Amino acid sequence: MNIVILAAGQGKRMKSAVPKVLQTLAGKPLLQHVLNTALSLQGKSSNNGPIVVVGHGVADVKEFLTSIAKEDFRFSKVSTTLQAQQKGTGHALLQALPRLSVNEPTLVLYGDVPLTTQKTLSKLVKLADGVRSKDSALALLTQNLTNPAGYGRIVRDTDGSVKAIIEEKDASTSQKAIQEINTGIMVLPTNALKKWLKALRAGNAQGEYYLTDVIAMAVKDGVPIRTTQADDEFETVGVNSRDQLAALERVYQLNIANQLMDAGVSLADPARIDVRGTLECGTDVSIDVGCVFEGCVTLASGAKIGPYCVLRNTTIGKDVSIHAYSHLDGAKVGNQSVIGPYARLRPGSDLSNDVHIGNFVEVKNSKIAANSKANHLAYVGDSIVGSRVNIGAGTITCNYDGVNKHQTIIEDDVFIGSDTQLVAPVRVGRGATLGAGTTLTKDAPANQLTVSRAKQISLQWQRPIKKVATKKAVPKKTTKKVVKKAVKTAVKGKK
Amino acid sequence: MNIVILAAGQGKRMKSAVPKVLQTLAGKPLLQHVLNTALSLQGKSSNNGPIVVVGHGVADVKEFLTSIAKEDFRFSKVSTTLQAQQKGTGHALLQALPRLSVNEPTLVLYGDVPLTTQKTLSKLVKLADGVRSKDSALALLTQNLTNPAGYGRIVRDTDGSVKAIIEEKDASTSQKAIQEINTGIMVLPTNALKKWLKALRAGNAQGEYYLTDVIAMAVKDGVPIRTTQADDEFETVGVNSRDQLAALERVYQLNIANQLMDAGVSLADPARIDVRGTLECGTDVSIDVGCVFEGCVTLASGAKIGPYCVLRNTTIGKDVSIHAYSHLDGAKVGNQSVIGPYARLRPGSDLSNDVHIGNFVEVKNSKIAANSKANHLAYVGDSIVGSRVNIGAGTITCNYDGVNKHQTIIEDDVFIGSDTQLVAPVRVGRGATLGAGTTLTKDAPANQLTVSRAKQISLQWQRPIKKVATKKAVPKKTTKKVVKKAVKTAVKGKK
Amino acid sequence: MNIVILAAGQGKRMKSAVPKVLQTLAGKPLLQHVLNTALSLQGKSSNNGPIVVVGHGVADVKEFLTSIAKEDFRFSKVSTTLQAQQKGTGHALLQALPRLSVNEPTLVLYGDVPLTTQKTLSKLVKLADGVRSKDSALALLTQNLTNPAGYGRIVRDTDGSVKAIIEEKDASTSQKAIQEINTGIMVLPTNALKKWLKALRAGNAQGEYYLTDVIAMAVKDGVPIRTTQADDEFETVGVNSRDQLAALERVYQLNIANQLMDAGVSLADPARIDVRGTLECGTDVSIDVGCVFEGCVTLASGAKIGPYCVLRNTTIGKDVSIHAYSHLDGAKVGNQSVIGPYARLRPGSDLSNDVHIGNFVEVKNSKIAANSKANHLAYVGDSIVGSRVNIGAGTITCNYDGVNKHQTIIEDDVFIGSDTQLVAPVRVGRGATLGAGTTLTKDAPANQLTVSRAKQISLQWQRPIKKVATKKAVPKKTTKKVVKKAVKTAVKGKK
Repeated sequence: MNIVILAAGQGKRMKSAVPKVLQTLAGKPLLQHVLNTALSLQGKSSNNGPIVVVGHGVADVKEFLTSIAKEDFRFSKVSTTLQAQQKGTGHALLQALPRLSVNEPTLVLYGDVPLTTQKTLSKLVKLADGVRSKDSALALLTQNLTNPAGYGRIVRDTDGSVKAIIEEKDASTSQKAIQEINTGIMVLPTNALKKWLKALRAGNAQGEYYLTDVIAMAVKDGVPIRTTQADDEFETVGVNSRDQLAALERVYQLNIANQLMDAGVSLADPARIDVRGTLECGTDVSIDVGCVFEGCVTLASGAKIGPYCVLRNTTIGKDVSIHAYSHLDGAKVGNQSVIGPYARLRPGSDLSNDVHIGNFVEVKNSKIAANSKANHLAYVGDSIVGSRVNIGAGTITCNYDGVNKHQTIIEDDVFIGSDTQLVAPVRVGRGATLGAGTTLTKDAPANQLTVSRAKQISLQWQRPIKKVATKKAVPKKTTKKVVKKAVKTAVKGKK
Repeated sequence: MNIVILAAGQGKRMKSAVPKVLQTLAGKPLLQHVLNTALSLQGKSSNNGPIVVVGHGVADVKEFLTSIAKEDFRFSKVSTTLQAQQKGTGHALLQALPRLSVNEPTLVLYGDVPLTTQKTLSKLVKLADGVRSKDSALALLTQNLTNPAGYGRIVRDTDGSVKAIIEEKDASTSQKAIQEINTGIMVLPTNALKKWLKALRAGNAQGEYYLTDVIAMAVKDGVPIRTTQADDEFETVGVNSRDQLAALERVYQLNIANQLMDAGVSLADPARIDVRGTLECGTDVSIDVGCVFEGCVTLASGAKIGPYCVLRNTTIGKDVSIHAYSHLDGAKVGNQSVIGPYARLRPGSDLSNDVHIGNFVEVKNSKIAANSKANHLAYVGDSIVGSRVNIGAGTITCNYDGVNKHQTIIEDDVFIGSDTQLVAPVRVGRGATLGAGTTLTKDAPANQLTVSRAKQISLQWQRPIKKVATKKAVPKKTTKKVVKKAVKTAVKGKK
Repeated sequence: MNIVILAAGQGKRMKSAVPKVLQTLAGKPLLQHVLNTALSLQGKSSNNGPIVVVGHGVADVKEFLTSIAKEDFRFSKVSTTLQAQQKGTGHALLQALPRLSVNEPTLVLYGDVPLTTQKTLSKLVKLADGVRSKDSALALLTQNLTNPAGYGRIVRDTDGSVKAIIEEKDASTSQKAIQEINTGIMVLPTNALKKWLKALRAGNAQGEYYLTDVIAMAVKDGVPIRTTQADDEFETVGVNSRDQLAALERVYQLNIANQLMDAGVSLADPARIDVRGTLECGTDVSIDVGCVFEGCVTLASGAKIGPYCVLRNTTIGKDVSIHAYSHLDGAKVGNQSVIGPYARLRPGSDLSNDVHIGNFVEVKNSKIAANSKANHLAYVGDSIVGSRVNIGAGTITCNYDGVNKHQTIIEDDVFIGSDTQLVAPVRVGRGATLGAGTTLTKDAPANQLTVSRAKQISLQWQRPIKKVATKKAVPKKTTKKVVKKAVKTAVKGKK
């Protein structure tokens, strides 16, 4: 089967430097949604891939196609053809004509209609079956709308067969009352299509060649027109403006939320979850309000995600608790681990079971073995951390010397005192203890206590006095607050 | 009055290892909501408590009942009876029969219908009054639904009296149009109930004994059937799937939001507040978008809660400001205090008036007296902090030695320099000053300056050079960025 | 033109100590919204400003007017007149009468009807044109409501002219069916108004003088009554309770969201954005879910704002990325900079291009030049930071000595090692390197390495043993966890 995706439009109402089909829905360009469906429809065995008719922002669209093909091999089948001037849908399809295999039917899709399902299109394609033989048919996807204003109406004969598509402006009052509209998505017999496209005329106000006009030609030629409809109205909704895009995003997200709930996921509020990619969940997973999931995220059974967490390309083990405001990207978290609140796991964070990462802790490119903890205000980067390690509050792995990154190794059963700096490359031996405030510049031997600490001394000392701006005299009515502050004298700290 | 709560169902559509009645709504198991109402209805003076008919997940349900009874003494009155096989609602009630006092009416509730109010049930119970005397009545809670499909319809005689309940599958077209449906919630004369239950037959497709069938028996026996309805439709909604649970959660939350607003609380968005427990507010409290309240939270007059805060079992004083993303659990905050943004108060945080806890600061099990501040990046744990204390940025109380926790005492008017570690047990005397970067291992004397500081030295030094991977040759086109980095030479830090 | 704003009501249903007209919508008092529109309507050239009729909370309202006049000079034209007792809208207007210029028409607005647009009022004022000449007219703003219950209905003659306003309680069944209601907003010929107001009688249950009654007088006097309607229903909605206020807030916010999308801004969810002030955006700005904007915020082209950010009085440069949970107030961020997640920029943060501020970093009153970074757990306050500076994790500028604030200067190309304290006033010379853990109390010379570091030593050492509470005997069944902990012995750290 040939698939042609019309994607040359600018999307003026978007007011964007980015071509419309590259605007994102659920984190992916509109065109990528359509291509995903098209590729699934054609299957791996197909020789010819989808043909994208490009126009506005052609360089950007091509760059996107190149980069997506690197990520996902299936996309390397996609080819483009240029519609240099935008002269209507018929004209757009005409650009792809030389590439179409005449022995196969042609499915026309739109780069700005992102959510048509494979199921709906398969139904449509089946309806057109026989297009290779004599009784070739044209299969048209229509939609019944409560408010059909603005769309082309499907006019049917008394026997129910499609007679014509009447555009809004040409419709009589009774025709305007027709609720069945043309979605533009259709499967056509390619041989006939060739003839029809060449016969199109731009005899309208816009001077454009409308694909819709082939319907009348098909009727005239006695080609049967068969129709079907999508299960959901959103499947055929096109995007022309930011508010339409936002509305479709919400429909998409609510759809995902319903799928998750059907699969047994507990959602605190289906209207406040955003999934931009794939989210796979085990049994009894619960997700609190306001979470955002991006890329591929997996949550094993019993995982609990607190409010306002952001998870991207992350794998979460069984019975893990992720507390509020945690931000995980490219991380792996082992079973029974406890993360957050306010924990940040950056790419390469690989946590084993029963690991605790607490508030204001950042982990990056580090492997942390079972039962280890970094519960408060710490930075663990480029490290290998053993089991049963306790990383004290304020600990920092100094992995960067300004030009190169170095590794920190912390062996099993180490206890790292608070506010310690581990100047990498450095190794802390098994069972070692580091005293609070240590700057570790050399390896710490196993089972010993290592410190770098100056002697504590106390001295008589006069705290500084509040400076009074010279241009103003001392105010007569010195407020209590100022007095309190003035009697305090202090060494440098901060506020 | 006898109260029987049917709670033996599995809730297959939940796809959960947890029995349906333990699924949570507003932070509490569905069954707990029903039990709360049942216990309030019976009152303290009642001898017999609610009887829960258990089945699926009996061990879990019993464990829940045991644990809740420990928290709330009222729940110790609750007893259970086992329905080993789920053979219908009539069969479930039959299991509780031996426990029912025949001299009192029996109210039947459902463990998966969580939100029926005490007001509605009191009305129902009153309607059944006289059940102990000759004119005993059956009181049935019905509901008028716009879309009654799927429910048993209430069929009435021309005089308005209830004649029968017709299940959907047995209903004629005209009966299907009836909008008044059976909620299943009813008060029955117990003596008659005994007779009726024993007469039930499982002559239906499922082979189950339906409690609904007693209605026909009551009609036959001339027992008057009186009906009433709940004020709100959600009161009689049952939960069978995650999406129904989520929908009911939203109804519940919007209801709470409306109650709060009626009481004078200012909500930035009633659709974005979650209260899972009780929230008591003084006058002129304002709550910004996205806040979550759990357990018992009290906000005194003039308290302002910023966006995306989480408060659990916390008491907030007058005119307190809690800024964005603050996370308070088990905390007490005095009047005029200022908390956050990004402040975390953990259990045992007891703050007096005019205390400031700022960004990236964690407080745990600590008492902080009036006018003290910890405004940046600090950890204060197991501490007693006096008045007018300034805790500098990066200060950490080292309360844990790997096995034991120790206390830090900071007396009034202390100034703690930045990045100080207080190795507990340790005491900082009144008016003492700690220099920045001090590791305090012994008590600091009052009114003196205490430091532990190495001498600052400067030396000629060559920064490290960017290492070039050996397998790749030095790229010809060295980018500006690389050049810049290469000329920098640096001591260990981090990135 | 005279403009009188009735603002004397208490708003009992608000249950607030704050007078109703000072309750806030989108961050501004209701009265401020009305005054803004009134001032725009009168224009700069007008001699007389709006007259606010005050009553309940007169001191608070006057204080508000004084403070807003300081912020915005236009408001200094606003004057007040006291309505000591609240005896109805007619009585309220009567208090302003002596101040009205008889040669100009009088527009009556309401302090609790905040969202009438200037466009609608201009239309209304135009309608009343000619009020200065003989054919003076009364212009009345009406509204068609689907559910008009509770409002005064507009009764029209067969020729369409307004005959009377009938209050709900006096309306016949057919009059109750009238959907056109009186909003109370009107423009009156001032000379006639004087006469009418004096003729008002309080012959109703409340004993109040209703402004509405002047309509009948106008009809009687043959003064033509001309009507128009607002484009949106919300323009004439008054606020009497917290839920009405919250509902209007949502309408307002959705309106702003639609305006932003029309202008080309990409919103992840139009129902989850709050703008309390002005938000100006360049092209291709994208805003993720849950963001809050306050005061004047400007986002240049290509700026991307992550989920749950709070921005107040902040200017963001081109192609800046603000990651999740960032909190910016009074900040300026240069082009291509990367901020957050969890970054806090406080007032006076002035960042040049390509600056990176990362997680758990607070910046205050500091100028940071191009290409500098503070990526983790740091506090930068009262500082001047050069270009290409790397501020290591845990770095703290100790700007406060308990009474005074001091400045830190960090010159170009400096590398600051982790966990360093810069005790201000202090200067770090160009190209200097500070070793990790340094407490810098004196200036650091350029191009040298400066450290303050104690020698690292290791010693044999016995970790502490888990203390067993004396009152409880050692539990027989020592759990694995306790055993594990007991074998660990450790120096002070924290948990």
